[in-house]
Amino acid sequence: MSMHWDGLLLDCRLATMTDNGVPYGAIERGALAWKDGVLAFAGAQADLPDRPDRLAAQVASAGNAWVTPGLIDCHTHLVFGGDRAGEFEQRLNGANYEEIARTGGGIMSTVRATRAADEDALLAQSLPRARALLADGVTTLEIKSGYGLDLDSERRMLRVARRIGDELGIGVRTTFLGAHALPPEFTGRQDDYIAQVCEVMLPAIAREQLADAADAFCEKIAFTPEQTRRVFTKARELGLRVKLHADQLSDLGGAALAAEFGALSADHLEYTSEAGVLAMAASGSVAVLLPGAFYALRETKLPPIDAFRTHRVPIAIATDLNPGTSPLLSLRLAMNMACTLFRLTPEEALRGATINAARALGLADRGTLAVGQRADFVVWGVERPADLCYWIGGALAREVRIAGRCV
Amino acid sequence: MSMHWDGLLLDCRLATMTDNGVPYGAIERGALAWKDGVLAFAGAQADLPDRPDRLAAQVASAGNAWVTPGLIDCHTHLVFGGDRAGEFEQRLNGANYEEIARTGGGIMSTVRATRAADEDALLAQSLPRARALLADGVTTLEIKSGYGLDLDSERRMLRVARRIGDELGIGVRTTFLGAHALPPEFTGRQDDYIAQVCEVMLPAIAREQLADAADAFCEKIAFTPEQTRRVFTKARELGLRVKLHADQLSDLGGAALAAEFGALSADHLEYTSEAGVLAMAASGSVAVLLPGAFYALRETKLPPIDAFRTHRVPIAIATDLNPGTSPLLSLRLAMNMACTLFRLTPEEALRGATINAARALGLADRGTLAVGQRADFVVWGVERPADLCYWIGGALAREVRIAGRCV
Ligand SMILES: [Zn+2]
Ligand SMILES: [Zn+2]
Repeated sequence: MSMHWDGLLLDCRLATMTDNGVPYGAIERGALAWKDGVLAFAGAQADLPDRPDRLAAQVASAGNAWVTPGLIDCHTHLVFGGDRAGEFEQRLNGANYEEIARTGGGIMSTVRATRAADEDALLAQSLPRARALLADGVTTLEIKSGYGLDLDSERRMLRVARRIGDELGIGVRTTFLGAHALPPEFTGRQDDYIAQVCEVMLPAIAREQLADAADAFCEKIAFTPEQTRRVFTKARELGLRVKLHADQLSDLGGAALAAEFGALSADHLEYTSEAGVLAMAASGSVAVLLPGAFYALRETKLPPIDAFRTHRVPIAIATDLNPGTSPLLSLRLAMNMACTLFRLTPEEALRGATINAARALGLADRGTLAVGQRADFVVWGVERPADLCYWIGGALAREVRIAGRCV
Repeated sequence: MSMHWDGLLLDCRLATMTDNGVPYGAIERGALAWKDGVLAFAGAQADLPDRPDRLAAQVASAGNAWVTPGLIDCHTHLVFGGDRAGEFEQRLNGANYEEIARTGGGIMSTVRATRAADEDALLAQSLPRARALLADGVTTLEIKSGYGLDLDSERRMLRVARRIGDELGIGVRTTFLGAHALPPEFTGRQDDYIAQVCEVMLPAIAREQLADAADAFCEKIAFTPEQTRRVFTKARELGLRVKLHADQLSDLGGAALAAEFGALSADHLEYTSEAGVLAMAASGSVAVLLPGAFYALRETKLPPIDAFRTHRVPIAIATDLNPGTSPLLSLRLAMNMACTLFRLTPEEALRGATINAARALGLADRGTLAVGQRADFVVWGVERPADLCYWIGGALAREVRIAGRCV
């Protein structure tokens, strides 16, 4: 008899995250089977054919452990040179922002270190961060450029992001974030830099297919809505979907602007108005919340979570892993912060790190445990799904599989 | 030639945490050697005798990595039955405290689960939590009783705590916390329970040498200063040092009361007055700060940190690892929270998790890298000591040694 399946996992408690009318889409006595990296069975063990062990090359028992879809971190800046621990320490030792800027701190220190690092050096520095996310259950992550701010350096960041995917066998989606900050060589010439992004950088990166989406930082300390609009218009021309760093520190109408361009997501959103929420609901954009930055910056203004619920805007949770405002190496910790600081329910947080995060990346092939989805899943040493949000730290993942392969 | 040392680690950057006039007591080109579990050399590599490799049975290079004393978690409740993730979820789903209490939640659910677990079951549930702390660099931890609340169950908790030490080779100090909460069989009879603690439990536990110290929870929702005083008086009679859960939710003068009894430490201290700080300074008690509970409870009242600095009260940082208010499995995360939420400097936080934590446990034989100290140390994959507080999550410990042995 020939093998139907490459692998079969019995005795699972599945948190399928599908809409089966049960919290977490749970199936208490479940099983998973996969072939060619895709789920071929995801359901009640009782619904398996007779002697299912004969159907798979590899059969194991999860010992009644909980199994979730692989976690998806849909917003990171994890490729960068250097770190900012020195600046973190300076600030806690009493230095103010001016002194830190004078001694070369701030985002420009990351830009300098990133520009100075060659591709291999950048990869070597970034890989441990991706490994930390993976160890905690992340099977797909998004990585943004935005510390190069010139064509060659932005390209290098995106190539390193892709290489992380190859190296770890992890799913990587890349986002071009040329409009992250103004590079020093354009001081006083913001519009010229935006022209450079639109006329030189975006076309080259689209041509070389280095990015899956484009992003911008729309904020008083970064780029205006009008400049963002230029970037988005060009991205759309080139066939790239957009995302936006919106309304983190003030309400510039970023959420509505993102929605106008049919953005995959608008991210941060602490200051988003109800009108912005309504626009997102209409465009189907995902609200990506980043509690790590909220925590690290000791913000107090909460994103309009009840409005997202009321208007059925899907909520995703991500680490925002970056050296300046969120040196956060665990998506589970972001989920805990989403519950603790934003009062999301554990189910909302897990949805935000699976199915809704997939949607924020435009990916329909992952984020749930269902036939036809990628066989990306995690076996956890926990009593119930809420434990994933409840425990702060610790190593709870027993087994992480990507496209069926143990990693 | 006979071997002088059991082990020698070359090419270290040492954060000795001694008072050598340099931040972190740093020695940039350092080495460590140990014999019989105790440091026999801790200093500049240049000060080693010629051909030091001939002097040790085992020689390795740290490759210029940072090495710190083993971290010390001086306040945990990590032995308990069950967990409270269900209650965490209920609350986020909108249940109020009354409903949670009615459905059997709160600390009494932990007491029930702890009483119901036999010694092996309690050990099996608690070991993974101790392993999580160890993986992140903790080489000594304190464990309190206080979920048994009857003599047999309290004894069992303390025996399990000691067994964790044997099982993992980790240093464990036990604290008897009978006066943690009122058990249901004493409802309405607080003073009778305190009499039971003083006349029955404390003497038995002292006689069996199951506890290294005694603790109480002095708070409106727990025990009064007068009841605490009775417990402390008895503990002192029995030769036990004391510690106190003090001033977490209100100022009952707990810090001053602890100081009056020469407490090793007073812990929490959000509401401690300047008079309390002065009393602690006079008694030499350590201020143990517990930012995990502050974070999880979304508290806003900060402990009087500047007053501790001004009056030279040593500050320690601990996880408070417990199922209700601080399910925190990483001391490094507590250090990050101490910096982020309490604005401690990274050096203060590291001091708080090494030398000052040792002092909070009455231990003079650990907490620094110096000749004669236990050979408890951690080799870290970081660029500078501040990284230990800066990164949120991740696995930064490369090698953890306790009394010279790799664990
Ligand atoms: Zn971001
Ligand atoms: Zn405590």
